[in-house]
Amino acid sequence: MEKEKDIIFGIRTVIEAIQGGRNIERVLISQNVQGKLAKELMEVIKENSINFKKVKPERIDWVTRKNHQGVVAYLPPVDYQDFETIVDKVLEEGKDPFVLILDGITDVRNFGAIARTAECAGVDAIVLPEKGSVSVTSDAIKTSAGALFRVPVCREKNLYFALRYLKNHNFTIAAASEKGEKDYREAQYSGPMALIMGAEDKGVSGQLLKLADEHVSIPIRGEIGSLNVSVAAGILIYEMVRHRD
Amino acid sequence: MEKEKDIIFGIRTVIEAIQGGRNIERVLISQNVQGKLAKELMEVIKENSINFKKVKPERIDWVTRKNHQGVVAYLPPVDYQDFETIVDKVLEEGKDPFVLILDGITDVRNFGAIARTAECAGVDAIVLPEKGSVSVTSDAIKTSAGALFRVPVCREKNLYFALRYLKNHNFTIAAASEKGEKDYREAQYSGPMALIMGAEDKGVSGQLLKLADEHVSIPIRGEIGSLNVSVAAGILIYEMVRHRD
Repeated sequence: MEKEKDIIFGIRTVIEAIQGGRNIERVLISQNVQGKLAKELMEVIKENSINFKKVKPERIDWVTRKNHQGVVAYLPPVDYQDFETIVDKVLEEGKDPFVLILDGITDVRNFGAIARTAECAGVDAIVLPEKGSVSVTSDAIKTSAGALFRVPVCREKNLYFALRYLKNHNFTIAAASEKGEKDYREAQYSGPMALIMGAEDKGVSGQLLKLADEHVSIPIRGEIGSLNVSVAAGILIYEMVRHRD
Repeated sequence: MEKEKDIIFGIRTVIEAIQGGRNIERVLISQNVQGKLAKELMEVIKENSINFKKVKPERIDWVTRKNHQGVVAYLPPVDYQDFETIVDKVLEEGKDPFVLILDGITDVRNFGAIARTAECAGVDAIVLPEKGSVSVTSDAIKTSAGALFRVPVCREKNLYFALRYLKNHNFTIAAASEKGEKDYREAQYSGPMALIMGAEDKGVSGQLLKLADEHVSIPIRGEIGSLNVSVAAGILIYEMVRHRD
């Protein structure tokens, strides 16, 4: 049975939490939930692009024995932050922000290790897409050694618009790319910076690559051809920090 | 049931494999194996510091239904190489060797990621201690993306003597240490080099630290205080490569 504090339950409660802007990780809905209120819940879930799953009734009972009405919602262990608010705040403080964008990382251990590096290097925010990505789960927090309690994490519906926002605020955007034409040691890293790391298999997606100012690669001498994404992120993040000291 | 090709079985077969110098990952011995030959097996196992475990009889049946006589030995998926032979060979080729020593890494995914980085960066050999360390299992190979088929891996009874061998061959030895007095960007990296990475929890052991020429640390701005070991290894290995190009 999961810890009670990380969930909320009951149809009305979950509807109100979503409408009140509460971060929701995922909603489980029993297959036998019906009626007007259940329909309203589904509408609210879809309007707000909340992750949900229809499950067998007993699955909900495993989570809580309380009066769940067939609906339980998982709350993220940390609250996601508003991306633009964080960027604006760092800029207002007169500092050069350093934003890390994770475009579709799916392995929770890679995410944890990257978040840990980000915290150690002084990254101002980590940005994830809402879909097709890890999220801040308790496993991710554990593998981050607690870093995810300290580095602000933002979830954006669309990373393209997030990047446009950064470009409008004079960020230099570097995308990690195995085929990148620029050796990471030769790129320019000054002023407000963003680094995009791509998915373990596909790398940074095409539309984000197009928005990037530089496609940076790490020279490979061996035959394997690519580094683990959390290792590559560590090398690039520390290279960027080196030039910002 | 495990793949037959990765095991050998039968008391006499296992004794002869060990005495013939075959790399053995681990031996499982049924609790009900007795007699003179079984006693000989135990002696050979202890003489050669082979990992072994006494198990219930049915455990062996799970591994193979063949005539195992209560004894099965796992072969490593790759053969460990002789450390001194590799070092000598690289030196004879007129190159500066780069040796990576993993002092008690226990997490197989960290090991895999480090091996992958080592392959990408052109490390000449990875050295593990025989005890208290990961070994080259199929899981390690998988997380290394196959790098462990390409980078030679050596297992040494005593890392202290391995380091003495390197010092006698004019290696500069750097040890990663969170409390290291030297910023990793300021260390000298030229000629034959060895880098020691320590265990996830305890770091590099005291007696190896004493043999190291430099204790290098990666600057930490955040509160967490340390990086994941595979990320730290990546940053340090690539810093060393940078100065060797």
